[in-house]
Amino acid sequence: MLTTNPFDDDKLREECGIFGVSGADGAAALTALGLHALQHRGQEAAGITSFDGTLFHTHRAMGHVAGNFDRDDVIRGLPGDVACGHVRYSTTGETALRNVQPLYADLSTGGFAIAHNGNISNAMKLRRELVRRGSIFQSTSDTETIIHLVATSNYRTLLDRFIDALKQVEGAYSLIVMTPEGMIACRDPLGIRPLVMGRLDGSVIFASETVALDVCGATFERAVEPGELVIVQGTEIRSIRPFQAVDARPCIFEWVYFSRPDSIAGDQSVYSVRKEIGAQLAHEAPVDADLVIPVPDSGVPAAIGYAQASGIPFELGIIRSHYVGRTFIQPGDKVRHLGVKLKHNANRALIQGKKVVLIDDSIVRGTTSLKIVQMMREAGAAEVHMRIASPPTRHSCFYGVDTPERAKLLAAKLDLGGMTDFIHADSLSFVSIEGLYKALNAARGDKPSYCDACFTGDYPTTLTDHDETASVDQFAMLAERVA
Amino acid sequence: MLTTNPFDDDKLREECGIFGVSGADGAAALTALGLHALQHRGQEAAGITSFDGTLFHTHRAMGHVAGNFDRDDVIRGLPGDVACGHVRYSTTGETALRNVQPLYADLSTGGFAIAHNGNISNAMKLRRELVRRGSIFQSTSDTETIIHLVATSNYRTLLDRFIDALKQVEGAYSLIVMTPEGMIACRDPLGIRPLVMGRLDGSVIFASETVALDVCGATFERAVEPGELVIVQGTEIRSIRPFQAVDARPCIFEWVYFSRPDSIAGDQSVYSVRKEIGAQLAHEAPVDADLVIPVPDSGVPAAIGYAQASGIPFELGIIRSHYVGRTFIQPGDKVRHLGVKLKHNANRALIQGKKVVLIDDSIVRGTTSLKIVQMMREAGAAEVHMRIASPPTRHSCFYGVDTPERAKLLAAKLDLGGMTDFIHADSLSFVSIEGLYKALNAARGDKPSYCDACFTGDYPTTLTDHDETASVDQFAMLAERVA
Amino acid sequence: MLTTNPFDDDKLREECGIFGVSGADGAAALTALGLHALQHRGQEAAGITSFDGTLFHTHRAMGHVAGNFDRDDVIRGLPGDVACGHVRYSTTGETALRNVQPLYADLSTGGFAIAHNGNISNAMKLRRELVRRGSIFQSTSDTETIIHLVATSNYRTLLDRFIDALKQVEGAYSLIVMTPEGMIACRDPLGIRPLVMGRLDGSVIFASETVALDVCGATFERAVEPGELVIVQGTEIRSIRPFQAVDARPCIFEWVYFSRPDSIAGDQSVYSVRKEIGAQLAHEAPVDADLVIPVPDSGVPAAIGYAQASGIPFELGIIRSHYVGRTFIQPGDKVRHLGVKLKHNANRALIQGKKVVLIDDSIVRGTTSLKIVQMMREAGAAEVHMRIASPPTRHSCFYGVDTPERAKLLAAKLDLGGMTDFIHADSLSFVSIEGLYKALNAARGDKPSYCDACFTGDYPTTLTDHDETASVDQFAMLAERVA
Amino acid sequence: MLTTNPFDDDKLREECGIFGVSGADGAAALTALGLHALQHRGQEAAGITSFDGTLFHTHRAMGHVAGNFDRDDVIRGLPGDVACGHVRYSTTGETALRNVQPLYADLSTGGFAIAHNGNISNAMKLRRELVRRGSIFQSTSDTETIIHLVATSNYRTLLDRFIDALKQVEGAYSLIVMTPEGMIACRDPLGIRPLVMGRLDGSVIFASETVALDVCGATFERAVEPGELVIVQGTEIRSIRPFQAVDARPCIFEWVYFSRPDSIAGDQSVYSVRKEIGAQLAHEAPVDADLVIPVPDSGVPAAIGYAQASGIPFELGIIRSHYVGRTFIQPGDKVRHLGVKLKHNANRALIQGKKVVLIDDSIVRGTTSLKIVQMMREAGAAEVHMRIASPPTRHSCFYGVDTPERAKLLAAKLDLGGMTDFIHADSLSFVSIEGLYKALNAARGDKPSYCDACFTGDYPTTLTDHDETASVDQFAMLAERVA
Repeated sequence: MLTTNPFDDDKLREECGIFGVSGADGAAALTALGLHALQHRGQEAAGITSFDGTLFHTHRAMGHVAGNFDRDDVIRGLPGDVACGHVRYSTTGETALRNVQPLYADLSTGGFAIAHNGNISNAMKLRRELVRRGSIFQSTSDTETIIHLVATSNYRTLLDRFIDALKQVEGAYSLIVMTPEGMIACRDPLGIRPLVMGRLDGSVIFASETVALDVCGATFERAVEPGELVIVQGTEIRSIRPFQAVDARPCIFEWVYFSRPDSIAGDQSVYSVRKEIGAQLAHEAPVDADLVIPVPDSGVPAAIGYAQASGIPFELGIIRSHYVGRTFIQPGDKVRHLGVKLKHNANRALIQGKKVVLIDDSIVRGTTSLKIVQMMREAGAAEVHMRIASPPTRHSCFYGVDTPERAKLLAAKLDLGGMTDFIHADSLSFVSIEGLYKALNAARGDKPSYCDACFTGDYPTTLTDHDETASVDQFAMLAERVA
Repeated sequence: MLTTNPFDDDKLREECGIFGVSGADGAAALTALGLHALQHRGQEAAGITSFDGTLFHTHRAMGHVAGNFDRDDVIRGLPGDVACGHVRYSTTGETALRNVQPLYADLSTGGFAIAHNGNISNAMKLRRELVRRGSIFQSTSDTETIIHLVATSNYRTLLDRFIDALKQVEGAYSLIVMTPEGMIACRDPLGIRPLVMGRLDGSVIFASETVALDVCGATFERAVEPGELVIVQGTEIRSIRPFQAVDARPCIFEWVYFSRPDSIAGDQSVYSVRKEIGAQLAHEAPVDADLVIPVPDSGVPAAIGYAQASGIPFELGIIRSHYVGRTFIQPGDKVRHLGVKLKHNANRALIQGKKVVLIDDSIVRGTTSLKIVQMMREAGAAEVHMRIASPPTRHSCFYGVDTPERAKLLAAKLDLGGMTDFIHADSLSFVSIEGLYKALNAARGDKPSYCDACFTGDYPTTLTDHDETASVDQFAMLAERVA
Repeated sequence: MLTTNPFDDDKLREECGIFGVSGADGAAALTALGLHALQHRGQEAAGITSFDGTLFHTHRAMGHVAGNFDRDDVIRGLPGDVACGHVRYSTTGETALRNVQPLYADLSTGGFAIAHNGNISNAMKLRRELVRRGSIFQSTSDTETIIHLVATSNYRTLLDRFIDALKQVEGAYSLIVMTPEGMIACRDPLGIRPLVMGRLDGSVIFASETVALDVCGATFERAVEPGELVIVQGTEIRSIRPFQAVDARPCIFEWVYFSRPDSIAGDQSVYSVRKEIGAQLAHEAPVDADLVIPVPDSGVPAAIGYAQASGIPFELGIIRSHYVGRTFIQPGDKVRHLGVKLKHNANRALIQGKKVVLIDDSIVRGTTSLKIVQMMREAGAAEVHMRIASPPTRHSCFYGVDTPERAKLLAAKLDLGGMTDFIHADSLSFVSIEGLYKALNAARGDKPSYCDACFTGDYPTTLTDHDETASVDQFAMLAERVA
Repeated sequence: MLTTNPFDDDKLREECGIFGVSGADGAAALTALGLHALQHRGQEAAGITSFDGTLFHTHRAMGHVAGNFDRDDVIRGLPGDVACGHVRYSTTGETALRNVQPLYADLSTGGFAIAHNGNISNAMKLRRELVRRGSIFQSTSDTETIIHLVATSNYRTLLDRFIDALKQVEGAYSLIVMTPEGMIACRDPLGIRPLVMGRLDGSVIFASETVALDVCGATFERAVEPGELVIVQGTEIRSIRPFQAVDARPCIFEWVYFSRPDSIAGDQSVYSVRKEIGAQLAHEAPVDADLVIPVPDSGVPAAIGYAQASGIPFELGIIRSHYVGRTFIQPGDKVRHLGVKLKHNANRALIQGKKVVLIDDSIVRGTTSLKIVQMMREAGAAEVHMRIASPPTRHSCFYGVDTPERAKLLAAKLDLGGMTDFIHADSLSFVSIEGLYKALNAARGDKPSYCDACFTGDYPTTLTDHDETASVDQFAMLAERVA
């Protein structure tokens, strides 16, 4: 019962998960396992690069980890005891294999592979300058900018070149880099995207979430810290902090929706935080009802928290099918709301005549909420109250999360009354931003300890490309289309 | 959150789901929808036959309904306002397309298509006799026996021939038959396998479960009764009962596990019955614990029932991944219990130091139970108590359910103490057979109103082929292998 | 340089090739080789059935032998030292796998596999009667009729049943049958379709043409005679002739086009016969020209014969590509005659200003001839004379050859002058029917020793289905469409 | 009947064919046609890039043009009236899609696509230097060197940068380049590889051979001259010659084997040249024989020339199958010489007891020659004389032709007597180098007008990489393996 809902069209989407391991036999097989556990962070494509001491080996594929990287021939083609991997969700039509990470280049210092979670917010500007100087890009990915900055750096050692490159980029990045000398894992100074470190026997593992350690049987050691570079060379591990120290601002949406509930993020159980948000919601927005019903699967922990805090029974009022196909042909308009019924069916016998509280993690466009409220009404619910375990999502993210343009965000267009009308609910409430921080044992105040820009518009970095009215899509404009 | 768990290796498996519709534009598209809702009853193959007033059209495919029958070209190749379909799980290696239903034959009375849920328990004997008389079988399916009995019957009309055939077969059958004159739906005299009837505007729909009506937007009318033939010819519906009346014995496992929780079976909500079994279990086998944890997903309703009856909080202690691949390569023995971790991960932060009650619907071989108990212990549980929402499964089913041979059933080999030791639990309890009947508002007594042979060994029919020590595999011996 | 041209749309098409081997290790592998050598007789589908002493094993596939039966896994799935196979070209849209031979049935006498080259001309009538008595057909193939006649025969032994069946069928059949007791090869009493017998070490081989023996390294022994059944049981070979003797009438088109030039048919080299037809044509229809140009590849032997007899030099005036795709998109009408240019290109430097004689084996619809004459003119030919190495094709074949309906045969619609105009040639001549017989060292007279019905309309059998105005397509009407 | 034999393992292989068109609606469709006609120059992969006035569009695929570029969806994805394409045969294991041309890069001057026939003989050295300066290579192709030289050139305009790049490369190159401003076609100063120019209505076409013009319906205008750059911008065509003039040395093997017989190369019909080589061979190496037999298909023109010059009849003594699969499983050693029999079968009836002259275009390793001589003997030939329509191949090619290493070239290892013994022929002769020049209406002398290094070792350029003992395989060492 995974709280992250892979099928739902109306969610923000984390764009990437990364994993790396140094010093383990069968490094690529472990990486495949780890990526599988991170699959919810990117379902579109996956890649693994291994290093056998002499050569780098890469396999990239569109689609899921299972089906591509559970094949014996693929794993045998990725020898070595160092490997890193990437799962990806892309925002544009440019879903070609060449954008699938890890990216790789032959530099004068030797091979260089990189896996990136986040988004470089001045990538366009840097790319234009690099091309002007003769660099040739092979992808439309912002990540490739980092590689060319390393390749053309005037510093001598790979590490100095890499730091030189990072100092030129803005935005969010958790990175895992492989070179012939070793593996480097790092997080941007604000620590916007997550990255943790674990151990399995003698090997070191890096991953976006602790669940990827669990699946490998590894023990969670600590988070890579904002602004930290962890360098693994054989059995030696070093840590350096080349950036000026700033207050960290990790993405708060990891606790709301992105991370798996069984992960530990920032020393807190994601499941417990979500239950606590549900409890906050019960206090902030109580309702007289018969049943608490989660919108499956991501609403379940908050619904349990709401039910326990309110004393209203938790019940499965919506049954979700495991067998989902999107495109069933609809024979005329006899069959209404077909899409949502393929995924979810009301537990009619339970709901008939009851006052229900629906709990969901967030509302983006509002289209799914509308359908689910209608489904409850058609099943005979007497009243339908919607409670949302995050504040209204009103702003786009430029740090590696796929958000619709602002004009499509329901909360950017309508006030609470308008939203309640739009989804046809009897009532609608969102947890407050302070309530959300409270569930994380924090207080927002003036110096927020999280990036909450999607709720507040308070962006922690400059947005160079965006301010130039450039968008990610400009990358696509530069390059050939590969049919 | 579907209680039927499609990935689990250690469950009994319903072998089929069937669906039919007469009198609806786009009958094949509706059938695809219905089969999709019945996918949990058979994941191996699917087929649909339509009739356009002149010709029959069939598409069969290995794999799921989605991916095969959500394609426009496939549905366009299945014209007509009458259609029936079938999803299948097969028990033997003989998974060839020729065994995928609906089966079809050109008879002297015209085309004849048949979809069957159940198992003919004297099929081998009948087949031998038919081959002796010159019949040529094209499949290794028991269902084909019915077609040849119809083809070679001495009666004149199709209906008389069909009744003549049914009177010769023993076992379990819910059938949907299509002929140029109309559709016939029927259930065997004991009503072992389910079949319900619904309406969508002017059309009539038959399906194994009511969820298939829900997904189409149809209204549930009634169950087809044991021993009843419902004949639909255009807008006319007739019902006949050609068999001697006997007391019905529907399969009790439909409420335990097979049916979806949002289905209505025998006028009872499957979800409510499961919660009630959980409540019974709380009364019969209470335990002093901190958390009630369902084994996802099929243990969830009983766990909610157990938690509500016992007052112990319901919590998600096991997180299930949506992205499951079976065959990830395991790099050495460093990674233990990998299979189960790919599917399920312990919510470690929740479980640490707690006394937990695990709720599952049934135990077949016991292998998964063992792994899940171990997973709880590794996550730091102080005590692990297993409670099972059905009696011990001790006998094979011969009525269309895939059961392991008796020697592999844990409860056929060990007593309660042995089973508790085997799964390494602190305690283990099953609901009693009387408790199970009670949850269904019945009492077992001497004349049980359900088939509960898998628990009791009390088979409601003769088992001709089985008594001759013939097995399903004999079919395979007769025929060519198709590589 | 194969004279049989697999790509050409405007040819009569042999519908089948068959091959069988008894008593050889790796029988299926040998059969795959043999079928590969017979691929020109049927390019649409192929199948092999083997018998391992206990079980029959079958693999059927759409497409060529190479690509399907050169795969190790496929051949390993076909164990045993007896095997037979079939390549097929089908005439109707019913190209489903179920029609691909060998066909197989479980009879009361045991397994029965059959591969058939030819066409049963009373199959429809027999099928209707069999269905009336309760037989269920699984294909729309005329061949299945034979199996049901065997299955329902009142005789006791398989051999008696098989002879009983053959006595009821009319038309053309070369058959290879496999049963647990052994292999039976036979030809219909008129011997319309070919079948030869060879030896490879201790094993016996049957094949449609001697090239299939060559490719296996087997030696050609003799033809199976018209009306003969050759029965192979282990190392014992018996021959029986259960039919009343009649004068044989083998298909003369085998020498004109169907058989490979390196085959021996009726004790004559096909290549030599074709050269001799070319020489006859030079005598019957001389022309004052600079070059003799074959229409590749099937016109080559006759062109060599024509060139040697006339003294005009043989030259490659048309170059044929090995890389043919049918469906290249044509950008507007700028690119004319594209289809033919993809296959054939004029050797412009050679042709410019020359008088050319084009030699082709036959004209069916005339469409290709028209394009080739135009190609010569566009390349600058001064005169284009067409000479055809067979008489005008005026009648349909009902014995296993795909002929267009009569209305589409150029020679059935137009006289010689009309045909010459249609193809825009300066002159056109066909070899005479007597000239054709002469090239075979025979004379036609009143009792022709070949079936030449396509030229003369003199059919050697009754045409029961055809006379009832039934056609092969009626089979399709009986059965379901399989999408 | 294509003289270029795509299946034969024992030939030198041209590695590429290129095609470009500017100013034609449906430019990509025309390019697909042209590449199809050039398929014999590279069967491993193909690619097309089009330019629609704003964007470049590319599709690359492993395999043949037909099957990949005859698909409507592919061609629709390649809009625009300018396009170029490439067919490729590669020598190393690195057959990844990233090496398939046209290669593309976004330069500061805009998009840049390039298709290359030939080989840069100092590519390794240039690459090392470019990487040292920060360039990142995306392929292991020597062609990419040119792109980076353009990207990093200090000149301002694209044309100046391109000329600057070409002046740094050594070796053989016929190139078609596309930029937003137009198309550039050029040949290296020695004109080693071919390139011709044609017209179709208002558009300009470039292609490796004239057959590609024929298939499009275009007219052949002239060859692009050695050292010439032809620049097409809209309807304007310019020609520049930036290199110091040197005597041209086109590859003589184009007339021997690479080009199609229906092409015009260097103003001479390839077919006529081959016939003339055959005639030379008849004069230089006459033999008393009954039959002249071509080794199909590439030996056919020379065999016709030999037959006409000698008066010995030309006959098809070897029949070639169109249906070739390489990997048929061989059941034991019963079946000898299976590989060659799948491709070629002796026309036994013709050969029995005859003295035969076999004509082939060249001998590389000698393995096929050996098998063909044996095939003739097994078919009963009284004597077998082999005549080869080129001089002995003794040296490797470094200009874009796949030659085995010298140690595997039969003529590099053995003298004429040794070769005769090796192939078991009664006699063996090669045409002399002077005879070959004579067939081209030239004389070799001291200043040869062709590159004949494979026969003479007289290489017309320095071989920088080779002299450094670098090989093409070093590219592969630099880069990651892509599984």
